[in-house]
Amino acid sequence: MLGRGTVGSAFQELLEQRADAIAVDVGRRPEISGVLTRSQGDFADILERSDLIVEVMGGIDPALDHVTRALRAGKHVVTANKQLLSQHGEELYAAAAESGAQLGFEAAVAGVVPAIRVMRESLAGAHIERVHGIVNGTTNFILSAMARTGASYDDALREAQELGFAEADPTEDVTGKDAAAKMAILARLAFGARVSLADVPYEGIEHVTADDIAYASELGLSLKLIGSAERIDGGVAVGVYPAVLYGGHPLAPVSGSYNAVTIESPAITEITLSGPGAGGSQTASAVLGDVVSAMSPPAVQTPPAADLPIVKDVESAFYLYVEVADRPGVLAQVAEILGLQGISVKSVVQRGIGDDARLAMVMHPVLESKFQAAVDMIERLDFVRSRPRAIHVIEETFE
Amino acid sequence: MLGRGTVGSAFQELLEQRADAIAVDVGRRPEISGVLTRSQGDFADILERSDLIVEVMGGIDPALDHVTRALRAGKHVVTANKQLLSQHGEELYAAAAESGAQLGFEAAVAGVVPAIRVMRESLAGAHIERVHGIVNGTTNFILSAMARTGASYDDALREAQELGFAEADPTEDVTGKDAAAKMAILARLAFGARVSLADVPYEGIEHVTADDIAYASELGLSLKLIGSAERIDGGVAVGVYPAVLYGGHPLAPVSGSYNAVTIESPAITEITLSGPGAGGSQTASAVLGDVVSAMSPPAVQTPPAADLPIVKDVESAFYLYVEVADRPGVLAQVAEILGLQGISVKSVVQRGIGDDARLAMVMHPVLESKFQAAVDMIERLDFVRSRPRAIHVIEETFE
Repeated sequence: MLGRGTVGSAFQELLEQRADAIAVDVGRRPEISGVLTRSQGDFADILERSDLIVEVMGGIDPALDHVTRALRAGKHVVTANKQLLSQHGEELYAAAAESGAQLGFEAAVAGVVPAIRVMRESLAGAHIERVHGIVNGTTNFILSAMARTGASYDDALREAQELGFAEADPTEDVTGKDAAAKMAILARLAFGARVSLADVPYEGIEHVTADDIAYASELGLSLKLIGSAERIDGGVAVGVYPAVLYGGHPLAPVSGSYNAVTIESPAITEITLSGPGAGGSQTASAVLGDVVSAMSPPAVQTPPAADLPIVKDVESAFYLYVEVADRPGVLAQVAEILGLQGISVKSVVQRGIGDDARLAMVMHPVLESKFQAAVDMIERLDFVRSRPRAIHVIEETFE
Repeated sequence: MLGRGTVGSAFQELLEQRADAIAVDVGRRPEISGVLTRSQGDFADILERSDLIVEVMGGIDPALDHVTRALRAGKHVVTANKQLLSQHGEELYAAAAESGAQLGFEAAVAGVVPAIRVMRESLAGAHIERVHGIVNGTTNFILSAMARTGASYDDALREAQELGFAEADPTEDVTGKDAAAKMAILARLAFGARVSLADVPYEGIEHVTADDIAYASELGLSLKLIGSAERIDGGVAVGVYPAVLYGGHPLAPVSGSYNAVTIESPAITEITLSGPGAGGSQTASAVLGDVVSAMSPPAVQTPPAADLPIVKDVESAFYLYVEVADRPGVLAQVAEILGLQGISVKSVVQRGIGDDARLAMVMHPVLESKFQAAVDMIERLDFVRSRPRAIHVIEETFE
């Protein structure tokens, strides 16, 4: 392992948690044979003792030298280094091809979003026409905050910095340069075209105003920092710029620090992949996916099943809809039954219609059996007009 | 190839288009050595002459027999058959493991959405906690139509049938059985648990009313047919039911006949994959991805680049924001300049603020160089107060 910053530490931790399970699946247990940091370790020695190099040091020097030497020595490399790949990709791809070593870099683009693997494998037979991406979480966070609160760019940037979504020096992110590097890597893979960072014009979000976002919103549009790569007239065009999206575009609902990539191809229309942008643990997970693939090229096979019981009575939040006679005490009685079963109500809409009323309620999570018992009791209340309707609620567990 | 219905025909067409490109990447050119239909072909003869069987006939009998024999003979199999896998998966996975043949079934679940591959490979090192899916395009189409127009279930179903999004006999789809089969397959892979269709309780959308959707919407919720698979108390729970989602849930914006799968794991938070549900060409593309993987297990490597020129001047739609003095003829002069450059305007918002006015416009696609020329001319108009602001518009190209 080269480097032990945020990503390196997260990777080390994740590997320790998962090494036994990987050993079961793959037949070998991955172990860290050495760590190179500025103050510790000798690269030649670590290389000698390793089958695979995880490069999470970042930057060009000495990463370029180390990765090149590893590939030439036939050692697999997994890297999260977008600068390296967007500026020196061709030499590295060639070095890997020559020695037969594998070079994985899912973690260099779009955090946890598996855009690289889907393009390389799921779409191996497809002709990719276009890729659109929200590939920088910092700028998407800032633009989302501006849209949500009407805040200025400066205030939203400050909020992002306070919450850890932007660095103290946010230049690489807000100028679009970080996104440009990622789009160069994606375009190279999507089209097999020689695209490096220098070929990607980029424009950032520093000059986006709250007005821009408000007016766009009036026209039904939402403003994002978009990376675009497409085939045009027998060539390819790649760029990064603020752009507005119609509400129905798959990238329009992507908010906060999330990343997403839409890949278009005639046979499939398009696929959209989305997930949290690069935090340490997300990037570490993408690195680990590549490590496992390099240890054992993915077979189109399914490992034997373990003995896990099937659970039938599950906790869930519920939505409940009841038609009742519109008289005093109705809500209280329904609420009492729910309370007796330990079910707590999160929100209620009640509305009178003639002599009737309709109650629509959302509950906090409860065992399905308990909720059903409550529904059966509610149904037997004399003021209830028809069978109450219960619907599962999927809680937001993230963001 | 076993079967030549919608998917089979689409696969044959796609393969013919892509065979040369695949030969370049993989080193072998895929060719259809024989087709078995009800009226044509002999299975034993086709098997003998093939390295890989594409099973797109559907149903259990004779697909189970044919797939089993192929795997036992060490031939790779790629199938789109969810009934087969959800009811006889274990025997097939075991047959494949025994002979070393590959068994690909990305096409059996969620159309073009690469849920199987992402779980198997990108998340090979991860501990998956939960999978939520919108895995049936017909029911999502019907519920979306009900939400959009307030239509009843019967009317929305009829619309779906007229538009080809529901079959004449929609039972498998609307009862949730189709989704249950897909969730059984996903749960088997996500958790390595022995889950078959019989373990998955399902409930359909036939009793969902326009009122349910309207009240849920008032509470900020949207109603979908959700497949859920999760680890609980050392076991797993899998089910399909109508459920309401909060607006921020990654599946909430998935509308029309689209499919989507959200995979949750502690290290990554979650990944969401979305795309069109299974049409013939989408399913064919998923089959082809598995075929290419079986022909040549995916290496973590990047093939050499082709010579594709980088195009700089690209056609795009644009958003234009101009601050102007609020006097007669202003909009006409701006529009005239745009017209002279061949730029047509799609929508405009104009608003007066004191002596000034603000124009926000969206244009139809035009070459960037032409649009910039128009912006430069507009900037020189004497009533324009500041540099006009131009922003790319990403057009909706699908749905």
